[in-house]
Amino acid sequence: MSAVIIVNGERLWHTLTVMSRFGAIAHGGVTRLALGEEDRQARDCLSRWALDAGCQVRIDRMGNMFLRREGTRPELPAVVTGSHLDSQPKGGRFDGVYGVMAGLEAIRALNDAQIQTERAIEVINWTNEEGARFAPAMIASGVFAGIFDLAYGHSRTDHDGVSILQALRQIGYEGERPMGSLAIHAAFELHIEQGPILEAENRLIGIVTAAQGQRWFEATIVGFSAHAGTTPMDKRRDALLGFARMVNAVNDIGRAFMPDGRATVGMAQITPNSRNVVPGQVFFSVEFRHPDEAILEQMEQRLRQAIDGVNNGALTAEVNRIFAYPPVTFDENCIAGVRNAVAALGYSHREMVSGAGHDACYLSAVAPTAMIFIPCVDGVSHNEAENIDPQWATAVANVLVNALLAKAGRVAAATSAG
Amino acid sequence: MSAVIIVNGERLWHTLTVMSRFGAIAHGGVTRLALGEEDRQARDCLSRWALDAGCQVRIDRMGNMFLRREGTRPELPAVVTGSHLDSQPKGGRFDGVYGVMAGLEAIRALNDAQIQTERAIEVINWTNEEGARFAPAMIASGVFAGIFDLAYGHSRTDHDGVSILQALRQIGYEGERPMGSLAIHAAFELHIEQGPILEAENRLIGIVTAAQGQRWFEATIVGFSAHAGTTPMDKRRDALLGFARMVNAVNDIGRAFMPDGRATVGMAQITPNSRNVVPGQVFFSVEFRHPDEAILEQMEQRLRQAIDGVNNGALTAEVNRIFAYPPVTFDENCIAGVRNAVAALGYSHREMVSGAGHDACYLSAVAPTAMIFIPCVDGVSHNEAENIDPQWATAVANVLVNALLAKAGRVAAATSAG
Repeated sequence: MSAVIIVNGERLWHTLTVMSRFGAIAHGGVTRLALGEEDRQARDCLSRWALDAGCQVRIDRMGNMFLRREGTRPELPAVVTGSHLDSQPKGGRFDGVYGVMAGLEAIRALNDAQIQTERAIEVINWTNEEGARFAPAMIASGVFAGIFDLAYGHSRTDHDGVSILQALRQIGYEGERPMGSLAIHAAFELHIEQGPILEAENRLIGIVTAAQGQRWFEATIVGFSAHAGTTPMDKRRDALLGFARMVNAVNDIGRAFMPDGRATVGMAQITPNSRNVVPGQVFFSVEFRHPDEAILEQMEQRLRQAIDGVNNGALTAEVNRIFAYPPVTFDENCIAGVRNAVAALGYSHREMVSGAGHDACYLSAVAPTAMIFIPCVDGVSHNEAENIDPQWATAVANVLVNALLAKAGRVAAATSAG
Repeated sequence: MSAVIIVNGERLWHTLTVMSRFGAIAHGGVTRLALGEEDRQARDCLSRWALDAGCQVRIDRMGNMFLRREGTRPELPAVVTGSHLDSQPKGGRFDGVYGVMAGLEAIRALNDAQIQTERAIEVINWTNEEGARFAPAMIASGVFAGIFDLAYGHSRTDHDGVSILQALRQIGYEGERPMGSLAIHAAFELHIEQGPILEAENRLIGIVTAAQGQRWFEATIVGFSAHAGTTPMDKRRDALLGFARMVNAVNDIGRAFMPDGRATVGMAQITPNSRNVVPGQVFFSVEFRHPDEAILEQMEQRLRQAIDGVNNGALTAEVNRIFAYPPVTFDENCIAGVRNAVAALGYSHREMVSGAGHDACYLSAVAPTAMIFIPCVDGVSHNEAENIDPQWATAVANVLVNALLAKAGRVAAATSAG
């Protein structure tokens, strides 16, 4: 194995363009919620392309799609890649779908080069990664990895009370493949960075070595609602003042653990939220992310100290942790595979930590896994304005096909037809 | 004129209790929105009581009700008192209605004492003081005083598109009395304080010498919405941090002008308000109150400086004044009338400034006016928990009847009949 394989960038971009029509909306983005009609169209299209490329298509009980390019030794654990076709409401046209299309393009490129591999290669489309229609996010990779059981996965319902099982049946994607039955030798997920780092540093490839752990909290500060005209300043119990203090405290916690730490107050509900009433209560979210569990613990301790500081008699404050994802360290051999492919191609790169959750995080519990990030313009994601450069798309797919090939084992070309 | 007149406190409390049944809700409060069915019931009841007390009842074009106890010199400008029967949604059972019932009780007490006055006394129920159903608040006293014209007043609509004129016709309260046709010699409005000062100082009577001016603002801080997991702390443009700074700045402005100054951020809308998105925008309200227009101007200047301080490149911020009520200074002769009555009765009292807007503020533009405050428990108002003590209700009505009598001129009792 010497020369690198190169994908067909134009063909890759064409598949992305076709996919962007399923659920297309006004300003260039897509609304393609999991297991809806637009998702069905995208799945059907992917399935046709896979069959045309000579793949077997199998569906598991959670609707995850597996496009298998057979190897010469089918009994060996497969090498896999993939991501998801579903989107956020008014989401972008690259989040998730890029990782699936890059996998498909890798198979096509191997076909073009008439390369056989020892191990099969499977491209996976994970169901309901976004969690926008059915909570929680990444439910189907979670069931695959044994984080959730199948009954739980099937029973999640959308806003209208439709369960995942019902939705799978409605669009004809309740498959028969048992969950987790695929043995995996190595797994790669390509994804847009959804952040600004690669573009800001003008680097093409993000070699993702880990995913941040997350701790999510809900907090409430209670004061007393009072008439804004008649209540003197020194007799107020203004919950919004406590909230302002917490916003600054959370920001300080994030800054204390730069560059990897993240600390965000994203949501707040003020009660009664009336122009001439001193706010009596503020309910808000706090989330921390860091690749080191010990530092997440420190962040949580500082949060609790800050909340205690708001409990000053006039105000009462409390915070509850609502969930925690531990940090994920990706597989050293898979990361090395990415490094080797990047080196062979000579692309600019950096190693980095994923700040977002991805199907690869769950998959890493049961299979050697790594991720590869592609820059996205201005770091914008979950937004119609989400964008990538076609040259980036080609380059990162080149990394993928070579990493897959190395893991799957190239079969030396026969000297003659046989 | 020597001895003071005393009202029948039990009768006054009974009228308040009966009134609290119109629109009664679960926890002791009322929902009696302006010109709704519950308001009609309350108006009809008031009208019956007034007729029973020998009054003429007249209604003007905005539905304001005038209950006239005739004087011996009907051609002289009348002495008036009153407030409003409408309530906030889930409001209290004393806000407004106490001022009307105290006026009715004053008439009954004069009847009981067989006292005639030179000037007529009119008790007024102003339409839609709260502004809860139709904005703006105090619309009907505003039309009476010429602040708004009648067409404007009639055309205000509620949430369902029903105009004030339509609502007046639906409940049969579009009257014929021309707006502002009543000549007024002196006016008094009794109202619950809606604040904590009188009760905290254990004083019975608030002699209101002025009403605070108000300036209301809307402000917007714009940053950039970004993924909370992937966006490093030092690359964020978090609008919520700018908001936290403004919350503190507004509070500091209020505290710089204690004890009379009020500064409140009561409402904020965070965009997108999602747990895992750095907030890209915050829209919020600011309001200032102070009895001195020059200080209101200083408060506004400090607000604009604080907003400028948030404009740091990463964030842009702007503030717009949406309206201003100038401060009101009540009539010195009317205030003196209140002081004299309080002194004659020997009640504890203090002079104070109204932090809230009242019909009396508009009325003061066209008539010599003053206000009298009664304490309310814990300063709570616009809340079902609003409460007053029956003894307070009686005492403040005693002040009213004696102040009215002094202004209306007691006619010496005839030495014999005929």
